[in-house]
Amino acid sequence: MHEYDVLLFELFAIFIAAKAIGELFERLKLPAVLGEILAGVLIGPYALGWIHPSDTLRAIAEIGAIFVLFNAGLEVSPRDLIKVGRTAVVVAVAGVIVPFALGFAYMHWRGDALTESVFVGAAMVATSVGITARVLGDMGVLSSRTSKIILGAAVFDDILGMLLLAVVDGLAESQGVQWGRLGVLAVEAILFALFMIFIGPRILCKLKPSVAHLSTYNAPLIIALMVCLGLSFAAAKIGMAAIIGAFFAGMIFSEYSPEWDLLPRVHAITEFLGPFFFFSIGAQLNVKLFNVEVLLVASIVTVLAVVSKVAGCGLPLLGEGWNTVLSVGVGMMPRGEVALIVALVGLSSQIVSQSTYAVVVFMTSVTTVLAPPLLRILFRNEMRMAREIGAQVGLEE
Amino acid sequence: MHEYDVLLFELFAIFIAAKAIGELFERLKLPAVLGEILAGVLIGPYALGWIHPSDTLRAIAEIGAIFVLFNAGLEVSPRDLIKVGRTAVVVAVAGVIVPFALGFAYMHWRGDALTESVFVGAAMVATSVGITARVLGDMGVLSSRTSKIILGAAVFDDILGMLLLAVVDGLAESQGVQWGRLGVLAVEAILFALFMIFIGPRILCKLKPSVAHLSTYNAPLIIALMVCLGLSFAAAKIGMAAIIGAFFAGMIFSEYSPEWDLLPRVHAITEFLGPFFFFSIGAQLNVKLFNVEVLLVASIVTVLAVVSKVAGCGLPLLGEGWNTVLSVGVGMMPRGEVALIVALVGLSSQIVSQSTYAVVVFMTSVTTVLAPPLLRILFRNEMRMAREIGAQVGLEE
Repeated sequence: MHEYDVLLFELFAIFIAAKAIGELFERLKLPAVLGEILAGVLIGPYALGWIHPSDTLRAIAEIGAIFVLFNAGLEVSPRDLIKVGRTAVVVAVAGVIVPFALGFAYMHWRGDALTESVFVGAAMVATSVGITARVLGDMGVLSSRTSKIILGAAVFDDILGMLLLAVVDGLAESQGVQWGRLGVLAVEAILFALFMIFIGPRILCKLKPSVAHLSTYNAPLIIALMVCLGLSFAAAKIGMAAIIGAFFAGMIFSEYSPEWDLLPRVHAITEFLGPFFFFSIGAQLNVKLFNVEVLLVASIVTVLAVVSKVAGCGLPLLGEGWNTVLSVGVGMMPRGEVALIVALVGLSSQIVSQSTYAVVVFMTSVTTVLAPPLLRILFRNEMRMAREIGAQVGLEE
Repeated sequence: MHEYDVLLFELFAIFIAAKAIGELFERLKLPAVLGEILAGVLIGPYALGWIHPSDTLRAIAEIGAIFVLFNAGLEVSPRDLIKVGRTAVVVAVAGVIVPFALGFAYMHWRGDALTESVFVGAAMVATSVGITARVLGDMGVLSSRTSKIILGAAVFDDILGMLLLAVVDGLAESQGVQWGRLGVLAVEAILFALFMIFIGPRILCKLKPSVAHLSTYNAPLIIALMVCLGLSFAAAKIGMAAIIGAFFAGMIFSEYSPEWDLLPRVHAITEFLGPFFFFSIGAQLNVKLFNVEVLLVASIVTVLAVVSKVAGCGLPLLGEGWNTVLSVGVGMMPRGEVALIVALVGLSSQIVSQSTYAVVVFMTSVTTVLAPPLLRILFRNEMRMAREIGAQVGLEE
């Protein structure tokens, strides 16, 4: 009973803090999601220390992340992803190789150990789809081509980042890298992605008439939630991040979302659970770890993280103009949950020092904090267009 | 990471089992909620043993209960509750005294110890608002006068049940009952209820224009969720069940629910989280505890539990005809979470035997299982009327 009171207090305090600072940020024309993260930094364990997230709260935050991605997936149709597929794959691969190489090279040049260098390189790889999707969603530009390239690339990116996480994990177990397991994981991940993009929507199309015959109240939503939970579990089971499964689940349902009125309903669930995820990203940033030397290394790594993503992800798109180059590069910039997971794996297996951990956390937070306002600037045109289309639709009604 | 995979599996397996058996029950013209509970009995730890709910899952089930009640509250306006208030209070008080007296007398007559007898009496007191609200909601009759008397009385009933739980708790601590603390709790509970019914809606009415000025996306939903979490915590804090706070939170927002489009959105959250609550009610029923003697005592206690609620709750309404008497009596019949909490408190403090525990669990499950089909029969007229009104609204559109 007592523990449960504590959970209720956590839920209430976090929700109100996240939404209050989010509201403040909205009024300052900054994305609300930043405010929700800042709430975590401020009242989380490392600054004011009012909230020490319990295990249960962390689990709820993970479920929140699943819904943030499910929601994002609902707005991306597989057809569109296929259209930008080739570009997205190129962007993703370049956006993994360049940051990893730069991060690894810099740390190795500084004289850090091999494991330490691989670790920092790996943490620089995976884009936080959650943050980017939320910011693009808040701006109402999820349906633009650039957004689709970013989300598509971020999905492929996470698949590659997950493979690197397996490398780090292998190093952490100090048995060296298990190449056999890694190969299996890679094949599984690629098959999973291809299946979801090409075959998943067809299966749903075949099953659609049966959904209409179900007696359960609001059956389409229930089926969508089942698929979301099932694919999240499946993704986690084969060693990928659960959120990737949730994203694909949303994508499969995207074409029926208007007909089944899924978006406002799933959005309501995300509105409730999402803030706990963004809060907990903030709550994991320890502001007290930084001294001058750590700050210097952290700043350099952060600059490399920004430059390498813009260069790696943006340059393959040079033919589409500088605005696209920068938009995609910046959209791929925020590292979040995956980088933090890499950081935690390294720290808890004691293969990296406290200070290297602080460097990764700093890089994660700064790229996360910088991306949203930059995206707002770069997506000015798309936002204006989205607003004009919205106004036209309003007039036509 | 591993624990988190387990949680995802639990969520997926429970959701799919609850909804599949719920669908089956719908087709058999039985309430879906029964199927969700049965899913818990079947695949829970005591029968097939496929799912052993983790602490996190139990917490999610509790949050589910909060949303089930929040949802129910959204459909009950305070004005209506005031209209049925006097009747509801009489029904609630009689519906507490008669079951407690009968349960206590029977156990004492059998030769059980005083604490054991008080314990069984206390477990017979509190109606499960969650079950009844869901069944009435599934039938679409929440706005009928009888439903309002039932929900109103169940709310008062829970306040009284919570006081008796404090008595049991006092006995469990074997320092005897702390009358001082009990008095404070009673006054707090009554003030809380009066505040929510008479003053809460007025405060919201005053704050309404400010909500419209918020920049946060979907601000009314966010505010409603904040109030729901806040009042749930407040209720738990002063020693009541959190769900009572959630019910009152819903009630405060009920008048603005159509304008703010709250119901479908909150309903979506309930659709996701509710099944975990109903599943966990089922998962706590141990089917293996029963031998012939336990079954006999359990059957008698169950009959007393049914008769005493129908007599206690129904008879004050004799003037309104037998259908109302029976509807209210049966509506107040299902015991659920509160009875199980009483049972667990008794068992874990070792003031009652395993067999008395089994008796309470049996009584809880049978009353829970019997009420929904009986309610369906008793509410035939209201259901027909609700359907006709629905059809008329449809025609007018």
